Amino acid sequence: MHPEVYEKARQAREAARFLATAPTAVKNRALEHIAGALEKQAAQILEANAADLHHLKQKAGYSMAFHDRLLLNEARIAGMAESLRQIAALEDPVGEVVGMSTRPNGLQIGRVRVPIGVIGIIYEARPNVTVDAAGLTVKAGNAVILRGSSEAIRSNKLLVDIIRTGLKAAGLPPASVSLIEDTDRAAAVELMRLNDYLDLLIPRGGPALIRTVVENSTVPLIQTGAGNCHVFVDAGADLETARAIILNAKIQRPGVCNAVETLLVHTAEAKAFLPETLEALFKEKVEIRGCPRTRECDSRVKAASEEDWATEFLDLILAVKVVDSLEEAIDHINCYGTKHSEAIVTRDYLRSRRFLNAVDAAAVYVNASTRFTDGFEFGLGAEMGISTQKLHARGPMGLKELTSLKFIVFGEGHVRV
Amino acid sequence: MHPEVYEKARQAREAARFLATAPTAVKNRALEHIAGALEKQAAQILEANAADLHHLKQKAGYSMAFHDRLLLNEARIAGMAESLRQIAALEDPVGEVVGMSTRPNGLQIGRVRVPIGVIGIIYEARPNVTVDAAGLTVKAGNAVILRGSSEAIRSNKLLVDIIRTGLKAAGLPPASVSLIEDTDRAAAVELMRLNDYLDLLIPRGGPALIRTVVENSTVPLIQTGAGNCHVFVDAGADLETARAIILNAKIQRPGVCNAVETLLVHTAEAKAFLPETLEALFKEKVEIRGCPRTRECDSRVKAASEEDWATEFLDLILAVKVVDSLEEAIDHINCYGTKHSEAIVTRDYLRSRRFLNAVDAAAVYVNASTRFTDGFEFGLGAEMGISTQKLHARGPMGLKELTSLKFIVFGEGHVRV
Repeated sequence: MHPEVYEKARQAREAARFLATAPTAVKNRALEHIAGALEKQAAQILEANAADLHHLKQKAGYSMAFHDRLLLNEARIAGMAESLRQIAALEDPVGEVVGMSTRPNGLQIGRVRVPIGVIGIIYEARPNVTVDAAGLTVKAGNAVILRGSSEAIRSNKLLVDIIRTGLKAAGLPPASVSLIEDTDRAAAVELMRLNDYLDLLIPRGGPALIRTVVENSTVPLIQTGAGNCHVFVDAGADLETARAIILNAKIQRPGVCNAVETLLVHTAEAKAFLPETLEALFKEKVEIRGCPRTRECDSRVKAASEEDWATEFLDLILAVKVVDSLEEAIDHINCYGTKHSEAIVTRDYLRSRRFLNAVDAAAVYVNASTRFTDGFEFGLGAEMGISTQKLHARGPMGLKELTSLKFIVFGEGHVRV
Repeated sequence: MHPEVYEKARQAREAARFLATAPTAVKNRALEHIAGALEKQAAQILEANAADLHHLKQKAGYSMAFHDRLLLNEARIAGMAESLRQIAALEDPVGEVVGMSTRPNGLQIGRVRVPIGVIGIIYEARPNVTVDAAGLTVKAGNAVILRGSSEAIRSNKLLVDIIRTGLKAAGLPPASVSLIEDTDRAAAVELMRLNDYLDLLIPRGGPALIRTVVENSTVPLIQTGAGNCHVFVDAGADLETARAIILNAKIQRPGVCNAVETLLVHTAEAKAFLPETLEALFKEKVEIRGCPRTRECDSRVKAASEEDWATEFLDLILAVKVVDSLEEAIDHINCYGTKHSEAIVTRDYLRSRRFLNAVDAAAVYVNASTRFTDGFEFGLGAEMGISTQKLHARGPMGLKELTSLKFIVFGEGHVRV
């Protein structure tokens, strides 16, 4: 038994009992208090973050992308505070009653939305996840145990101190939010097996992190993030529309999970669509890895390997394949996709319906960019990642997805006969 | 790689793609065809079942309860057929559209109810689970892989043969339902780790089975069944009502998960309520294991151990404890309960609300017997067990709980800015 993990989990369970019935106004007051404290203590936060960055630079082979994710500045601190205020402004999901009705025997039965309980979050470098995740889980009435990466430990410790002070000032138990300070793997694995204390574990990070958690966790999981997304240009599609969508989905922000990774083009449009589209992509410095028929359209296209079809590049790289039919496109997506976001560009009504029905993904699009898969864009407000599994929550997870429904039953001495 | 498990899982995944868009009428025709075939082939089913029972009797130390669960007879076969016809009569959950609305940018976004995909079910002796589980999963558009116990293998093989013939006759892929015939533990463990082929695993059985699956599965789970349920008799409760409820919850069917296992009595009512209630329970041959204050009320009460508070007896045994307050009752339930069904008997409005809010369980009752936690009683129709976890489905799982919601997005060339 890992003493730090166990003790924090035990305290989180107690805090969760209190939070489950905490009034909305108290939860909001805590979030607003924390937002103000983040702004007031910006200088100290930047100092802690500078120490994290300093240690990162001692390490051989760190990437600039990693450095950027770890970095905080005035604007990012203001963003964290703003995010908490937005969460405070969202409707409290707890207490909603769903489907209350009276059975023939007079029993009144319905479901009430309640917090899940204690949620563990295992994540990588970005310190703003610490604040976002704490804000969302607390607003939905849950306690949260955070496990960030070792590189961000100084930033995270201070952020969680500020959060706990704010919780206390508002009258909520500080143990509602805690940080596992031991950044060894053993501490994380211990957390993954505390079924008596944790109700849910959400891993947020790259494929290696997700795989480790899936392999080791006995606590129920929601997997997030992996997005090998496709755009399929159907026979007869409006090619200008198709070009605008593929450029947007690839270029607007290539490093995020809802960016497109593979373009599929119906053979009927390949000659009309590909040369000009590839030219536009090359102009934007996109590397193209194509099937043989794509390579015939432009000599700069590299040969795609089997692995490329299955890869989330998160970069200015696009795999391109010419397919012979709608069904081939659907099969390719269901085979290589990660069940995140998939789009068809078409003018055909029946084929749009076939694609919507047959593609197995969290979000299926007709004539729009996959980049819209996002809590704000979908109208859920702030989100806790994008679920790519099918149980409980699929797609962007807002506050509702951090709750559960329990049955409540009103009788007048009813017994079963 | 276990060849049988792998090959059946691969075929199930293919069948699931077909089933996902299969018309309701075709699915219903299959269920009705299977129901008819079960009745026509009753003699062969009884023969296969007799062989299972014969083998069971060769084993040392089998219990009559186990024998009874394994046993099929004409009435039970008719019951299986009837159950399939009831499932056919239920509304198809697939295709329901939830919360479709138009965003300010004109994107139309909603969620459509879709099958989960491939569901694995690991269960114990009862062969009727084979038919029920197949009927429910197929009606909800899922493929299912069944893993029954070795004791029922002859019955299950024949039942699954009949099911597959019926599926084929209706035009559905026979691989929609398959049985893992290798009853070794290794085959089950293999099934628990086939994340690329299974979307969900539902263990149905005793605590040892559930524990094995939780420990070994990397596939998402829904845990079912464990029910350490409580009835709390509040200060000022109507004692006649309380007595009727506790007798019903304990005696009407003691071997099921929604039967009560512990009675909690507010100290203010202990002297008025307990002697007569214990007398009535003793008359029904219930063994009572009580706290010291309960034992003062009747010399026949045995001393309850710490373990008794945590035990699902599934028998004519009741633990009884006198508590000093509503809060002590809530804490006891949240500490020892299995988050199944919990009841308060009270006349007090505010205390009923406090109990409803503070008790963490799938179903919380005011003034009714816990025995109502059941798919039929709750109006869901047939059920696939009672979930005691918080994600996805809580309480009785009907057809809807065997589906997922995916986002569908209609654009007109929308790109993100």
